[in-house]
Amino acid sequence: MTPNDNKRFRVFATSRIGDPAENRLRERGYALEVFQGPEAPSKNLIIEKVKSGIDGLITTLRDPIDADVFEAGMGSLKVVAQIAVGFDNINRADANKYKIPFTNTADVLTEATAEFAFFMMGMLARKMWQSERLVREQKWPSWHPFLPFLGDEVTSKTIAIIGTGRTYHNDKYIASIQELMDLRLARGIQKEKTYIKYVEFEEALRGADYVSIHVPLLREGETDKPTYHLINEKTLKLMKPTAYLVNSSRGPVVDEKALAKALKEKVIAGAALDVFEKEPVPPNSALLDPEIADRCRVFHHFASGAQITRLDVDPDKGMAGRTVQGLIDVLEGNYGGDPTKMPYVVNKEAWA
Amino acid sequence: MTPNDNKRFRVFATSRIGDPAENRLRERGYALEVFQGPEAPSKNLIIEKVKSGIDGLITTLRDPIDADVFEAGMGSLKVVAQIAVGFDNINRADANKYKIPFTNTADVLTEATAEFAFFMMGMLARKMWQSERLVREQKWPSWHPFLPFLGDEVTSKTIAIIGTGRTYHNDKYIASIQELMDLRLARGIQKEKTYIKYVEFEEALRGADYVSIHVPLLREGETDKPTYHLINEKTLKLMKPTAYLVNSSRGPVVDEKALAKALKEKVIAGAALDVFEKEPVPPNSALLDPEIADRCRVFHHFASGAQITRLDVDPDKGMAGRTVQGLIDVLEGNYGGDPTKMPYVVNKEAWA
Repeated sequence: MTPNDNKRFRVFATSRIGDPAENRLRERGYALEVFQGPEAPSKNLIIEKVKSGIDGLITTLRDPIDADVFEAGMGSLKVVAQIAVGFDNINRADANKYKIPFTNTADVLTEATAEFAFFMMGMLARKMWQSERLVREQKWPSWHPFLPFLGDEVTSKTIAIIGTGRTYHNDKYIASIQELMDLRLARGIQKEKTYIKYVEFEEALRGADYVSIHVPLLREGETDKPTYHLINEKTLKLMKPTAYLVNSSRGPVVDEKALAKALKEKVIAGAALDVFEKEPVPPNSALLDPEIADRCRVFHHFASGAQITRLDVDPDKGMAGRTVQGLIDVLEGNYGGDPTKMPYVVNKEAWA
Repeated sequence: MTPNDNKRFRVFATSRIGDPAENRLRERGYALEVFQGPEAPSKNLIIEKVKSGIDGLITTLRDPIDADVFEAGMGSLKVVAQIAVGFDNINRADANKYKIPFTNTADVLTEATAEFAFFMMGMLARKMWQSERLVREQKWPSWHPFLPFLGDEVTSKTIAIIGTGRTYHNDKYIASIQELMDLRLARGIQKEKTYIKYVEFEEALRGADYVSIHVPLLREGETDKPTYHLINEKTLKLMKPTAYLVNSSRGPVVDEKALAKALKEKVIAGAALDVFEKEPVPPNSALLDPEIADRCRVFHHFASGAQITRLDVDPDKGMAGRTVQGLIDVLEGNYGGDPTKMPYVVNKEAWA
């Protein structure tokens, strides 16, 4: 017997999503089959599983979910629950045609990503990668006021936030410049002076010591204000030569070739990137040129990669928790069985 | 002609301190000779220069300044200006005996150090060193919810600040636990809930997700509450197994052997260290054991190593600026020529 008795839902997950969330489904009596990976299963395997009559499919960004999959699930598949905020891999028009709701895990990773962006700024500007290398490679020299290198302060500098992340509206480029928080806050002393100023994109770039990108990727044709290659040879030149760029949004927002050139020619002081035009970064990427390694920090699309954020079973804390809640909402008919009322369903327009 | 006409002060610096501060002295008509380094000059060379009749000596932590030096400067040497907050290298009793004021650069590096400690926390907990290595070593795997590793969040965690840095009083161990600032502050949105709580040392260790050390080094005999090996096998065991240690104070406050063992046995989750019992870290240090490299971040005593903090000519911003101002105060007889009134003179007791 299960909490939902009568019905024993069958779910296939294309990847492990961690014990807490997997156990939540099993404890509710779900028959959960998990592809153990770590790589993604083939599309054929996904189709085979869907064809076998599963009720729900848990997916990652790596799985191509389109009409082939929905067709295979006709009459049985009821929901695709994606463990990600993005869903470029899911063909939305196809999902709508087959009236299959799909869910994502927006919002729950906002704080982890914001703090990671901030730490990227610090690790880059304070040259912490280079410092650790000195120690590990036994090259730590005798103390000197400025040799072998110094970093730049973050406290009290001006940061341009390009786009405001989840609250960003693509009909205008608003960018906020604010004096960065005073780190004395870490000791609980309130900052006396804080301001945030909304300015145009170019003014933000010109005035900032740090530029942090938080726009969605919007390509030509999708909007009248595309963000594809928003940071390019021309806009990089608007930045101060002492300024740093941080990108934790989407890789193609930055023209990597132009950025690598700007770093090489010291048009800007440095860049820290968690996202790339092509992921994983190809070995021949200009961004991996050893000549710019001292001013180019690179991470493996890891800004949301923290324990609670990824794995917590609480849908308000963890992506895995939100994924299974989205799946449960659909399968168990929460919200009166109306997908347009379910908070994690993305393609609500299919029932409009 | 110089701004001080009549007198052309002669100064020897044992290290470069950067163009802005060096130029300030030269522009005032000082005859400044700088040992080009980057290593420190021998004590013999310092004595020779002092003997030649210089008025002022600019020093770093690397230079042993004692009776030999003061004796050599009898009748001519008027001030020793140290570019550091610490002055373990200067024999204070000897300076007092010869009535030579020496200056330091306290306070001006507090913010740079505080932010560095915070970034150490992030780089450690969010596993940013490991992430960059994956990318650079072409080991970035396909996206997975938790493989090859996840980090831990910083936002909203509990941090124990052991000692309050410049405001620390050695007659009591106070430690504050506060909910760490919410990174939404980076977008200028005020945190709704902030608290700071003063608790006993052991309670702080038990309750914290992050422990950040900010006490001075006080050895047995110097105080009834020494901080030497304050973090040791016993106190490490009070910490949560999920907690992280950050030390940007002084190396000997942490028993490194005990820490390396605790990291190896996963008594705590990780540590980030900018200071060590012996600096530079010896190659055979247990902290450099590759087995714990994923949870032990190491830096080259670099927390104050930022451009403005080190080199700015403004004595309220830069250590170099404060160094030359301390020197000028003494040589040019500011504050009525009374060293006890000069803000950067350390050994005021010699004139009490």
